[in-house]
Parts: sequence; structure tokens; C-alpha cells
Amino acid sequence: MEKYFDQHISRRFNEELEALRSHVMKMAGTTEEMLADAIAALVEGDTEKAEAVIAADDQVNLMEKRIDEEAMQILARRQPTASDLRLVMAIVKTVNDLERIGDEAEKIARVAIVLTESERPRNNYYELENMAGHVRTMLRDALDGFVRMVPEVAVSLFRADKKVDDEYEAILRQYYTYLAEEPRKTSRILNAIWIARSLERIGDHAKNIGEYIYYLVEGRDVRHMPSDEKEQALLDDGKD
Amino acid sequence: MEKYFDQHISRRFNEELEALRSHVMKMAGTTEEMLADAIAALVEGDTEKAEAVIAADDQVNLMEKRIDEEAMQILARRQPTASDLRLVMAIVKTVNDLERIGDEAEKIARVAIVLTESERPRNNYYELENMAGHVRTMLRDALDGFVRMVPEVAVSLFRADKKVDDEYEAILRQYYTYLAEEPRKTSRILNAIWIARSLERIGDHAKNIGEYIYYLVEGRDVRHMPSDEKEQALLDDGKD
Repeated sequence: MEKYFDQHISRRFNEELEALRSHVMKMAGTTEEMLADAIAALVEGDTEKAEAVIAADDQVNLMEKRIDEEAMQILARRQPTASDLRLVMAIVKTVNDLERIGDEAEKIARVAIVLTESERPRNNYYELENMAGHVRTMLRDALDGFVRMVPEVAVSLFRADKKVDDEYEAILRQYYTYLAEEPRKTSRILNAIWIARSLERIGDHAKNIGEYIYYLVEGRDVRHMPSDEKEQALLDDGKD
Repeated sequence: MEKYFDQHISRRFNEELEALRSHVMKMAGTTEEMLADAIAALVEGDTEKAEAVIAADDQVNLMEKRIDEEAMQILARRQPTASDLRLVMAIVKTVNDLERIGDEAEKIARVAIVLTESERPRNNYYELENMAGHVRTMLRDALDGFVRMVPEVAVSLFRADKKVDDEYEAILRQYYTYLAEEPRKTSRILNAIWIARSLERIGDHAKNIGEYIYYLVEGRDVRHMPSDEKEQALLDDGKD
């Protein structure tokens, strides 16, 4: 009887953890959609789509509060230790980054609305659409890493983030040239800069999520390591 | 703060929580200094000072990892509940915002170094120095709120953040005008925009810390409430 009771409790605990995890997935899926829609709104000049993204951010904020509350309940009632505790803490941190991703997607949507009033550039913001594609892939990889609990995702996200940072720098240099050459288009170019900046930050957040997954699975905190050292640490661990 | 401690049977647990709290204070103090020095470096054109800020960011990153580790140890070994659990969670969140404040201060320092190579504006970045003063006050208030555990700090930080946001918008409008008028100074003006943006974000982080203190003391999560509702909620609670 005692044993059955233990198992019963632990099964319910597992269900709670599973529910927590699935709520995080749902939140991550929503932020990924927001990003896709915000960029579509920019490229298509679709104000309605942009407004839907802005509305979705309220949902994401609510999700963050609910998941935090759920995590606190689990900590208080189940007092998890070891990998369960790491899972809960990784979720609390992940949710924080997801919320900020939602904020950035919302900012992009707001700028997209402003930009419907400017003349469209000949390439229709191709460089931003392209960069957003890379950032979306990062987000999907982070999500996938979370589902499958593969620490290697930290390595690929770390590398992808470096590439996105380079892409951002290149776009910025291009825009700086435009700014100096075409002062008449200052406002449009600055708005495009804000979008590039938001995309770059979303990449950072996706990379952070990779680090939480790594910490969760491997029990080792690789945040803020110098680049070379971190890459080596991640690769070494990957080999074991 | 006393009330959180006198409930504990274990003196050792009290000491652990006190150590955790004092490490957060130290980290907060460091980020505040970084902000002050980064702006001083900008105003004085002092590259050495800027480089010290950049170096200090490594310290802040390390502090975050250590405090997180400490918090995890406490959660695993002491399995705190109620207000102790809220304290630990508020600290984990606060430390995350402090780390991002450090990042922004570092960014300001990096831009300050680049700007030593540009001609200085006649007002010597007075508008940024002024904005930074307001943001530093916010940081100090957040720190003070944490020491004294006063939830009212959430109200004053919420209002101060609104003012800083308005200030940021005003500075941006001014810079946009300069950009259109003086394309020759594009690079300098864009760099000044980055600094204003970083200051605005530091204000956001300070406001977040106010919300964690509020949650910790009052047990109520006021994040993401619509402005009016939040202000009302904070004021109503303040009155009880």
C-alpha cells in the first residue's frame, strides 16, 4: 500500500512536470508564430496581421505569469531536487526569455505598422526577412532541443547566434551607408535598424534557451564562458 | 527583513539566506557603479574608464552564475516554502535583470570608446548624462527597496520608468532631427541613439526588480498589468 501510494504521488508529480513542460512548449510555439507573423506583416505591409501580433503579446505575458505560478506551486508542494529541480529552474528561466522574445516580436509588429506609411524599398526588406528566417530556425531548434532534451542544441545555437550577430553587423553597416547617402529616408532606415536589432536580440534569447537545456541535461552552467572555451566545453561534453 | 528570518529554526538557513541577499546587493552595487562609470567615460572621453567597465562585466556575469548556484543549493537542501521560496525566486529573477543591466552598461562603455574618435557635441552629451542620472536613481531605489523590503518601491519605480520612457522618446525625436539635418554626423548620432536605448532598457530592468520586490512582499504578481490597472493595484495595496 505504502509503495503504491508513493508511486501514485510520484505519478502525479510526473504529470505536473509534464503539464509544465507542455505549457512552455505552447508558449514557445506562440512566440515563434508571432515572429513569423511580424515579419510577414512587414513584408506584406499588412497592418491587420501586425495588430494580431501585438494582441498575442498579452497572451504570452499571461502565459509567463501562469507558468511561473505553476513552477512555484511545484517547488512549494513537491520540493523537487536534482534533475527535477533543474528542470523547474530551467523552465522559469526559459519562460523569461520567451516573454522577451514576445516583446521583441511585438516591437517588430509596431514598427511594421509605421513602415506601411513609408515607400517600400526596392528589395522589400529582403535582408530582414532573410535574417528573420535564420532567427526562426534558432527558435525552432531551441524548442526541439527542449522536447528531445538534447544538450547538443546548445552548441548549434551558440554557432547559429554567432552567424546571426555577423549578419546583424553587416545589415547595420549597409544601413549606415544608406543613412549617410539618403538623409530623406532617415526615418525608414532607422525603423529597419530597430527591426534588425530586435531580431538580433531574439537570437540571443534562443541561444540562452540552449544554455538552459544544456545546464538541465548536463548539470553544468556554460553561460558567459569566453567563446572559444565555451565551444570547446560544449564539444568535449558532447563527445563523452 | 527580520520577519523572514525569525521564523527559522535553523540558524544556518538564516545565514544562507542572508549571504544570498548580500551577494545580490553586492552585484547590484557593481552594476550601478558600472553605469555611473560608463557615462563618466562618455562625458570625459575616458577610454581607460570605459575599459574598466567592460572588464567589470565579466565579474557581474560570474556573480550571476554564483548566486544562481547558491539559490539552487538552498532550494535543494532547505526546500523553502512560502515567503522564503518567494525570496529565493525573486533573487533568481533580480539577478537575471542585474546581469542584463551589466550588459547594457558594458555596451555604453564600448560605444563611449568609439565616440572618443568623433568630434564632441557642443553640449557634451548632456541629455544622455541627464537621462543616466534618472536611471541611476531608479537603480538605487530598487536596491534600497530590496534592502528595506518595501513594496511601495514598485509604485515609484513604475512611475519613474514612465518618465524615463518619455525622456527617451524626446531624445530620440531630437536625434532623428539631427540625423536628417546633418548626415555628416550620422555615425556619432547613431552611437548616441544606442546609448539612449541602453539607458531606457536599464530603466525597464530596474522597474522589473521593483515588481519582484512587490511580489516577494505582497505575494502578488503585477507584471504586465495594463498601466492604469497596475498603478491602481499597487496604490490600493499600498494603502492596506
